Amino acid sequence: MTLKMWDLAAAEDDRRFSPYCWRIRMALAHKGLEAETIPWRFTDTEAIAFSGQDKVPVLVDGDKHVHDSWAIACYLEDEYPVKPLFGSEQARSLTYVFKVWTESTIHPPVLRAVIKDLFAALHEKDKEYFRESREKRFGKTLEEVGADPKKTVADLRTALLPVRQQLVQEPHVCGQHPGFADYILFGAFQWARVVSPQRLLEPDDPVYAWRERMLDLHGGLARKAKGYEVWA
Amino acid sequence: MTLKMWDLAAAEDDRRFSPYCWRIRMALAHKGLEAETIPWRFTDTEAIAFSGQDKVPVLVDGDKHVHDSWAIACYLEDEYPVKPLFGSEQARSLTYVFKVWTESTIHPPVLRAVIKDLFAALHEKDKEYFRESREKRFGKTLEEVGADPKKTVADLRTALLPVRQQLVQEPHVCGQHPGFADYILFGAFQWARVVSPQRLLEPDDPVYAWRERMLDLHGGLARKAKGYEVWA
Repeated sequence: MTLKMWDLAAAEDDRRFSPYCWRIRMALAHKGLEAETIPWRFTDTEAIAFSGQDKVPVLVDGDKHVHDSWAIACYLEDEYPVKPLFGSEQARSLTYVFKVWTESTIHPPVLRAVIKDLFAALHEKDKEYFRESREKRFGKTLEEVGADPKKTVADLRTALLPVRQQLVQEPHVCGQHPGFADYILFGAFQWARVVSPQRLLEPDDPVYAWRERMLDLHGGLARKAKGYEVWA
Repeated sequence: MTLKMWDLAAAEDDRRFSPYCWRIRMALAHKGLEAETIPWRFTDTEAIAFSGQDKVPVLVDGDKHVHDSWAIACYLEDEYPVKPLFGSEQARSLTYVFKVWTESTIHPPVLRAVIKDLFAALHEKDKEYFRESREKRFGKTLEEVGADPKKTVADLRTALLPVRQQLVQEPHVCGQHPGFADYILFGAFQWARVVSPQRLLEPDDPVYAWRERMLDLHGGLARKAKGYEVWA
């Protein structure tokens, strides 16, 4: 039985840019699980109304459905324990701390760095929703949020210190092997890569080499996805 | 055979304030290991010259010695695997990320909030060293660094978001049971508590209740230590 996942798309059906959906696509591939990914836009709320809320990812597994990327990761880990995403219960808890850190510290500068390109890539029917919701969240116009990508990229590189120090000693955030924390952080970079050529990292940064490894994982799943291959 | 640990002290021998030493004292207690802790000041470099460097904690275990709190935690975990500090290799890697985050994001506002009291508590022979080294690090006088404890406490509370969200769902950073990441974060709070009555948390903050639990652990080891019992 094939799993199904509703996956955020831009104007083109195959330009999939959600950092939350990418975590789950990488987690599914990590576990060797096949999933049909269904393109979805912010305004397609009817299509996922069965899940009782209006955000993706939503995963359907037979007669069960799960939403929210953290809940989906825990569901996959508990239902399909082979090839674990977490090395232990302690690692699961620490990954949750890492998730909140990524979303509060890494997501904002990544979004600010690419927001103009992201807006341009959106499906026309999503543009009004995106502008209104994000301008409300930031308390600024999208143009103001994206006004200084250079400063924002510098902020991002500073914020990456904890993972950079880890990646000096081991190949992944999770150590010798990638785990869900790697997919959480990678989701932020893939979000940017899918919609924008904006350079976020320099080749001498250990985070750069890690991102390359993540792009190569699982048969190059993320590298083959529609996006910008080489940073300008 | 008793372990020995050189442990940073203030003017009084029993006022032990290093966040790095507290991590290890809690880790030793976690594993049920007895250790003699030897009071040491910043300027007592001769006493630990055998370790090839000039910082504490230094742990001596028979004919072996280890310095640096991370190296000591890993040594303890590998030599005394009972009652693990890390739930798995993945948890160890994620704890390393958490350590760098704590030291870069939590330590600076904690130190700024209590630096005047900390300086006043130091042994006279350490004051010149402390002033010079910290003024160089901050690029400011100690008085400037400590000028706005109210703002600094607000910064600290904001920075605690990732652990606060975890502590809403589970009693410890590491989940149901405390682990080394708990001791890393707790070291920062105990550093402050030992030298200063400055209030860092409000009772309605989930981090407050977690700190109370940490103070009670291992027979109240940290609560019984010389410091300020109740926040002003």
